[in-house]
Amino acid sequence: MSPSLSPAKLQLIALPGIPLVKPGDDLAHFILGGVAAADESLSTGDVLVIAQKIVSKAENRYVDLRQVTPSARARELADLCHKDPRLVELILSESDEVLRCQPGIVIVVHRLGIIFANAGIDSSNVEPEGEAERVLLVPQDPDGTCRRLRGELRERSGVDLAVIINDSVGRAWRNGTVGIALGASGLPSLHDLRGRRDLFGRSLVVTQEGIADELAAAASLLQGQAGEGAPVVLIRGLKLAGAAANAAALIRPKAKDLFR
Amino acid sequence: MSPSLSPAKLQLIALPGIPLVKPGDDLAHFILGGVAAADESLSTGDVLVIAQKIVSKAENRYVDLRQVTPSARARELADLCHKDPRLVELILSESDEVLRCQPGIVIVVHRLGIIFANAGIDSSNVEPEGEAERVLLVPQDPDGTCRRLRGELRERSGVDLAVIINDSVGRAWRNGTVGIALGASGLPSLHDLRGRRDLFGRSLVVTQEGIADELAAAASLLQGQAGEGAPVVLIRGLKLAGAAANAAALIRPKAKDLFR
Repeated sequence: MSPSLSPAKLQLIALPGIPLVKPGDDLAHFILGGVAAADESLSTGDVLVIAQKIVSKAENRYVDLRQVTPSARARELADLCHKDPRLVELILSESDEVLRCQPGIVIVVHRLGIIFANAGIDSSNVEPEGEAERVLLVPQDPDGTCRRLRGELRERSGVDLAVIINDSVGRAWRNGTVGIALGASGLPSLHDLRGRRDLFGRSLVVTQEGIADELAAAASLLQGQAGEGAPVVLIRGLKLAGAAANAAALIRPKAKDLFR
Repeated sequence: MSPSLSPAKLQLIALPGIPLVKPGDDLAHFILGGVAAADESLSTGDVLVIAQKIVSKAENRYVDLRQVTPSARARELADLCHKDPRLVELILSESDEVLRCQPGIVIVVHRLGIIFANAGIDSSNVEPEGEAERVLLVPQDPDGTCRRLRGELRERSGVDLAVIINDSVGRAWRNGTVGIALGASGLPSLHDLRGRRDLFGRSLVVTQEGIADELAAAASLLQGQAGEGAPVVLIRGLKLAGAAANAAALIRPKAKDLFR
């Protein structure tokens, strides 16, 4: 039988004991500590899914809203969406295009290409710091961070893993957030089924599966969104086949997107 | 600590030995056989995720295209999208509204409310039968099927499970299909985080997580889309809290959807 993405079992383990992350913290160190605290050791083929929030914190993606001066355009949009003009200024500075703006909602095309409410900027689970009005931007280059973290983990553990940074996002058409991959390294994020055959030998028409997004969604079940503090999930048992692709491969180009 | 949706571990097991399903087959029987073949027994809180395709087959949702006479409207759309007019007739008969139609693509609002390419009608993994040109529609009432299957499994095993029917679908904005829940019973498909507090005691703004869709996506990793034939996945370890909601709760009403 050829290599397959369908193993018999998958295990997801929320790594215990990951501390609150501060700017400059060594995430690889925390992760290896969490693996040890879980009484596990890493194996080739393991996937680590890391919550966006702790990556942003480690990379000091905090902004103090008191330092932000809203432009005329930001003030105009803020009137339409009933949001803080300084936050809207930040959203604009993180984005290529505003797709929707109405009371309570701003949806943009983030400069990474991801379509995001509020450009992914978050103020929940952000530690207060004195008088600062801190919010947290998404990482500058999530695919790059995954590649770098993967290298560090390989160097320190000797094991070649896959790494995903995930975030919970809203969707068109459906209620409820789900986890998606903001960044990925070391796995076929978009798994190409072209050329494979179905149970009855015919070519498959549906050709690509968003593997990294499915892994991100699965990990999200363990991470929780509230006070659980389980930001890193180890996924074990996935048989990864196919050429590696980063999370940018999951972004549908504007020209091919019928729903903007 | 209050009940939480964040357990330390989740396990996903693709049940072995599920036979090819024929109309009228007893899925609960096959599933209990698969649980036994996996050397597992069911426990309260377990979630069974069942691929749409085997539910449709058991419910005899086959249609022979030779029996379908396309309407004038179907022939018109078929010209636009370069599809078989008989298939387009079926798509229309399954749908409330056509959202997009262009070469190679028809995206509709299915009568269940789900936004679907080709109304979810599929011809891969459909057994040939003589001269028939068979395709397979999605189940008539996936939430109802989940409720019924859950009742049957409870009756025969004594255990109260959650049941999801999943399907792989395309999405706005992102490449690659992911699993979503077409039907669900016995779990909070849409988990409401309103009133919960973040790590620093503030109320959360993002309030609802699409739990059943995340479970559906996770199971999809094991089911594969090609010839793997692992249509039922047992998910174990999820701590389900909150009021049960079926998969219909995951559908965003048209009036609240900014992206149709």
